[in-house]
Amino acid sequence: SIIPGGQPENRATYIGKGVMTRFSVPEMKGFVAYDDYVLHYDRRTRNAHWVFEHLTRERVKASEEAKRDKSEFHEEPKVHPFFRSTNSDYKGSGYDRGHLAAAGNHRWSQQAMNQTFSLANISPQVGKGFNRDAWNTLEMFTRKLTKDFPDLYVVTGPLYLPRREDDGKVYIKYEVIGKNQIAVPTHYFKVIVMAGKSGGLELMSFVMPNQVLPANVDLRNYLVPLNTIERASGLVFFDSIPREMFTRVNAKEQIS
Amino acid sequence: SIIPGGQPENRATYIGKGVMTRFSVPEMKGFVAYDDYVLHYDRRTRNAHWVFEHLTRERVKASEEAKRDKSEFHEEPKVHPFFRSTNSDYKGSGYDRGHLAAAGNHRWSQQAMNQTFSLANISPQVGKGFNRDAWNTLEMFTRKLTKDFPDLYVVTGPLYLPRREDDGKVYIKYEVIGKNQIAVPTHYFKVIVMAGKSGGLELMSFVMPNQVLPANVDLRNYLVPLNTIERASGLVFFDSIPREMFTRVNAKEQIS
Ligand SMILES: [Mg+2]
Ligand SMILES: [Mg+2]
Repeated sequence: SIIPGGQPENRATYIGKGVMTRFSVPEMKGFVAYDDYVLHYDRRTRNAHWVFEHLTRERVKASEEAKRDKSEFHEEPKVHPFFRSTNSDYKGSGYDRGHLAAAGNHRWSQQAMNQTFSLANISPQVGKGFNRDAWNTLEMFTRKLTKDFPDLYVVTGPLYLPRREDDGKVYIKYEVIGKNQIAVPTHYFKVIVMAGKSGGLELMSFVMPNQVLPANVDLRNYLVPLNTIERASGLVFFDSIPREMFTRVNAKEQIS
Repeated sequence: SIIPGGQPENRATYIGKGVMTRFSVPEMKGFVAYDDYVLHYDRRTRNAHWVFEHLTRERVKASEEAKRDKSEFHEEPKVHPFFRSTNSDYKGSGYDRGHLAAAGNHRWSQQAMNQTFSLANISPQVGKGFNRDAWNTLEMFTRKLTKDFPDLYVVTGPLYLPRREDDGKVYIKYEVIGKNQIAVPTHYFKVIVMAGKSGGLELMSFVMPNQVLPANVDLRNYLVPLNTIERASGLVFFDSIPREMFTRVNAKEQIS
């Protein structure tokens, strides 16, 4: 029988072999692992919660083999069809299909690059002035850091930030596009842990609004305290690293 | 050393003993189990994703011991302070502290009732006309079902539904209240699986807008197809039960 007895479950039976297992209570399933990066998908917004990459100088190098124009944007089969974003959702929306794990970070193999074209790794981004410009500048800056630091650990994701309106109240408001109602994030974040040759660690954390930004954008203007991103995203970053282990945090000198 | 070697991780090392474990990649932690119900907390909205209850006739019965006015709204220590909702967030907001797992469903013990006053189980609800009226009507209807069905499995949660605006675009917009920016859901859902004496299963699923609703609300007007709730919430409900096992779905005759 699938009907449990009438006695109150306790904590242990809820978690153990009790009703939880029997009725498969809804869970926030969304973890997807690729060859060269991992992400957690937010089934409600149809955007990733976060995308995690480990970058090194060798890995971001272009290989003979990998060609960007061989990669195709594709639906993510690991995401339930109810929550999957599709190419047609973006069509006519006015937004680019923006990479969270940048294609240019995964050029050591065609397959690794192809996997960044999963729509689970894609978010609606303003094209000119953002995806193709200011945000791309941040991605190139990130890759350049691999010349000075043997290992980078990078978390990238969307934000939906509140604004006070004329009625004095504070609202979160964002567009949704397409039949599958893909959320258009108001901002994006990128958190970078840089591991130096001597074992020292540095941290840099950026937030950029998803809008047309000035040409020759100055990345220093987009450095924000890590806990601002944490509070807004609902995430805690790198919490196994005690904060005092970072020799520098958001050091503007890294940005020339 | 906490610095892994320069070789590309593969899927296995990401998941296994590789960088994931070493650097504790952000996760969506949020599962909280109480004596008499369980929930998953959404750290970004500071509301539960869902609350799950198993109700029986015996459990919803008032006990001599349990008194509602002995229960106090309290912060949830299992939620990280960054994402915790507090009593002061609600103060002056104009919204009630509305229960997702209703206090009235857990009167068999004082402790069980107290646990429904965790702010992880609380969402901002319009008071008069909703929390104290229409939504309460749905909660009383749910409890009454225990007279006809030995076991009820109930999932309750918030929704943030999109609306088309004058510019022709579709937006999700909701207020956030207090220093901790608690989201005010636009709607709430309740999904009920009723297990009958003969082993048969029925399902009912409701969505109500978080606003003043008519007095003597007719609950039949708020029945919606389950997959509408699934698509909007990012959740899949009771997916271990094949849909053809439900002898009736959203049968209006249950509501007198
Ligand atoms: Mg891009
Ligand atoms: Mg209530």
